[in-house]
Amino acid sequence: MINEIKVAEILCVGTELLLGDIVNTNAAHLSRELAGLGISVYHQTVVGDNPQRLKEAFSLALSRVDVVVVTGGLGPTCDDLTRETAAELMGRRLVFHPEILDEIRGYFVSRNRAMPENNRRQAMVPEGADVLHNDCGTAPGLWLEDAEHRVIVMMPGVPSEMIDMFEKQVKPKLLARRHSALVSRNVHLFGIGESAAEEILRPMIDSAKNPTIAPYAKEGEVRFRVTAMADDAERATLMCDETVRQIAESGVGKYIYGIDVQSLENSLVQELAHRGLTLACAESCTGGLVAKRIVDISGCSAVFLGGAVTYANEAKIRMLNVSPQTLDEYGAVSAETAAEMARGIRLALGADIGVSTTGIAGPGGGNDEKPVGTVYVGISTEKGESVEKLSLSPMRDRDFIRFVSASNALHAALLCAKSMK
Amino acid sequence: MINEIKVAEILCVGTELLLGDIVNTNAAHLSRELAGLGISVYHQTVVGDNPQRLKEAFSLALSRVDVVVVTGGLGPTCDDLTRETAAELMGRRLVFHPEILDEIRGYFVSRNRAMPENNRRQAMVPEGADVLHNDCGTAPGLWLEDAEHRVIVMMPGVPSEMIDMFEKQVKPKLLARRHSALVSRNVHLFGIGESAAEEILRPMIDSAKNPTIAPYAKEGEVRFRVTAMADDAERATLMCDETVRQIAESGVGKYIYGIDVQSLENSLVQELAHRGLTLACAESCTGGLVAKRIVDISGCSAVFLGGAVTYANEAKIRMLNVSPQTLDEYGAVSAETAAEMARGIRLALGADIGVSTTGIAGPGGGNDEKPVGTVYVGISTEKGESVEKLSLSPMRDRDFIRFVSASNALHAALLCAKSMK
Repeated sequence: MINEIKVAEILCVGTELLLGDIVNTNAAHLSRELAGLGISVYHQTVVGDNPQRLKEAFSLALSRVDVVVVTGGLGPTCDDLTRETAAELMGRRLVFHPEILDEIRGYFVSRNRAMPENNRRQAMVPEGADVLHNDCGTAPGLWLEDAEHRVIVMMPGVPSEMIDMFEKQVKPKLLARRHSALVSRNVHLFGIGESAAEEILRPMIDSAKNPTIAPYAKEGEVRFRVTAMADDAERATLMCDETVRQIAESGVGKYIYGIDVQSLENSLVQELAHRGLTLACAESCTGGLVAKRIVDISGCSAVFLGGAVTYANEAKIRMLNVSPQTLDEYGAVSAETAAEMARGIRLALGADIGVSTTGIAGPGGGNDEKPVGTVYVGISTEKGESVEKLSLSPMRDRDFIRFVSASNALHAALLCAKSMK
Repeated sequence: MINEIKVAEILCVGTELLLGDIVNTNAAHLSRELAGLGISVYHQTVVGDNPQRLKEAFSLALSRVDVVVVTGGLGPTCDDLTRETAAELMGRRLVFHPEILDEIRGYFVSRNRAMPENNRRQAMVPEGADVLHNDCGTAPGLWLEDAEHRVIVMMPGVPSEMIDMFEKQVKPKLLARRHSALVSRNVHLFGIGESAAEEILRPMIDSAKNPTIAPYAKEGEVRFRVTAMADDAERATLMCDETVRQIAESGVGKYIYGIDVQSLENSLVQELAHRGLTLACAESCTGGLVAKRIVDISGCSAVFLGGAVTYANEAKIRMLNVSPQTLDEYGAVSAETAAEMARGIRLALGADIGVSTTGIAGPGGGNDEKPVGTVYVGISTEKGESVEKLSLSPMRDRDFIRFVSASNALHAALLCAKSMK
């Protein structure tokens, strides 16, 4: 039996990464995919097109893992050194493959272009390597094994080409070299901070070996990932589900808004669709972000009627029928205004639920009574209005305050939808 | 004279990066910033919260560069090992700093929360380190030098905290360790593709050694960065300005909307403020994104009155007074509807300029006559309405089509503002 692939290193080759011209989405994608296969990634490394540094990074990676997953450096120019370096490290010659050249030429012909002469380099393959076909570009990928079955996988750096090649050709080869199954569940929480959630679950997290429980926090949300490993997927799934149940019964249970969901906005749109409800929003400090995040969800048109961005007081009066007296007496940033905004947009568009935001996102505009970070979220249904006051940290930047305010509005609408009918 | 900092390595610490849960935007940001300071980055490395591997990666980095720029691993939990590892490698003790603890406690007090006990760890500082204050979170950063003036800079992993700390505290310290002046100018273009712009400027780009000209493309915009190095900043600035002038006089000149500007939305808000004009927007396919991007700009309240997100036809009629007959006859995605939307929001809010978007962002909803990517951008002033039709690639995803549509709306409003009064 060939040794199991358990540990990988991701090696991304490209000067454009080192210059910060592009963000390394390849490393994130591959890490996620490999984690899903139960393959641990302990290192991601980025190097440029420098022969010596590339060779050192390659050699270091190969010394400590079962598979080195390389992206980039497979292009046609003499700067593209991945093929040569891998061949050298594994003591292989480069052999010319005419059928690869035919494929590459075909790629150019299908685009009515002549193949530049230097694309010939892409048809040079280390002896004994498996060629991975590129359905989206010219650079073929390569799968190269040494005598101990350590593997170097080489894929193009262009994300769309890499993703396609990984999914169709690399993943099946890696799966064949895995001997156990790995299943994950994500528990999504809103309304509780990371430290507080972790403190509650700390004993469970610390004692959990299989499944493991890992916390993640991102812009006001907390997520726990439960991962189980077993001989088969069915068993691993059962193990995950049992741990998820324990989390749901713990002190953080009431903050859970979904299991394996994509986002608050996605859960909201699904919940509205499921219940046949419609939504409209009125935004001041979030300035269109609530609407934008709902419209991010393909298919939202069945439940989202529209919204108003009423940044100026005059707009609140004209579009939402907020009373000038309320604005005078309580101010634009007040529970009273939030309630009237939510009610106003609900009635203006004939929605089942109206949601509103009004607050001070900063950096200016705060005072002692209402510091930056003071935000009101209003909800209106035919049963009446309710308002929640947020006190976000005035130290956070405008983007963060607006994003978290929008998240609170989406979450309030989600809870409201769940409570209806 | 202390040795000049010429080469950096970026070391990002975090298991969430190795799991692919987050994309490493920090590495890209820091690489770009360091390149801007004339500091070369030859390696980016990502490791998890494992003591042995962290120490090895740290040690390798320190052996080959002048400065190791570290992000992450400065949190309060015992998984956060960056402080300890850096101290160990440089042979320093960790010393408790009560004033840092006070700052952290203040952070929690300002949020009406009690400080968890484990945040005390964040007040432990390697002897001799400079503390970098965190204006956006709890983890302080650290600047640590050894006897040979090799530097380890440690910053939090949360991007907003890291960016703020780098800009305000790390950059000035790095600049002080550079011996020549580097000046950059960014030329921002809209309405021309990257390849087309590059083709026009190719001879200039290829022959430019100092200043250099580097093209960047991002989501529908093109930018050329001109960078000059000289003995002093004044001389470098003059060199940049001369090259910028040449670019402005080339074939791409008419697409330039700003030099060293932050974004389309920023230019728009400044232009409106400069001319004393007000703006309102009506959005269908962009679903709040135009408003969101304007409200991103602090101080927009002086010029931005508000907007309507009219996703449903009924909303277009109720909020924008679009005629049902227009919707019937031409459809919601039409020049006629775009014009009525822009006019409707302008009149509803009494703005000088109304801008609108209506289109098909996909993935569904397209047909032969109006494929996915068909978008109309309307502009209305008291002089009348004008509409621009965009045909974006139906191969691009929903997010891209909406973003570029919003960019076109912002650009159209900017051109309109420039043409008024």
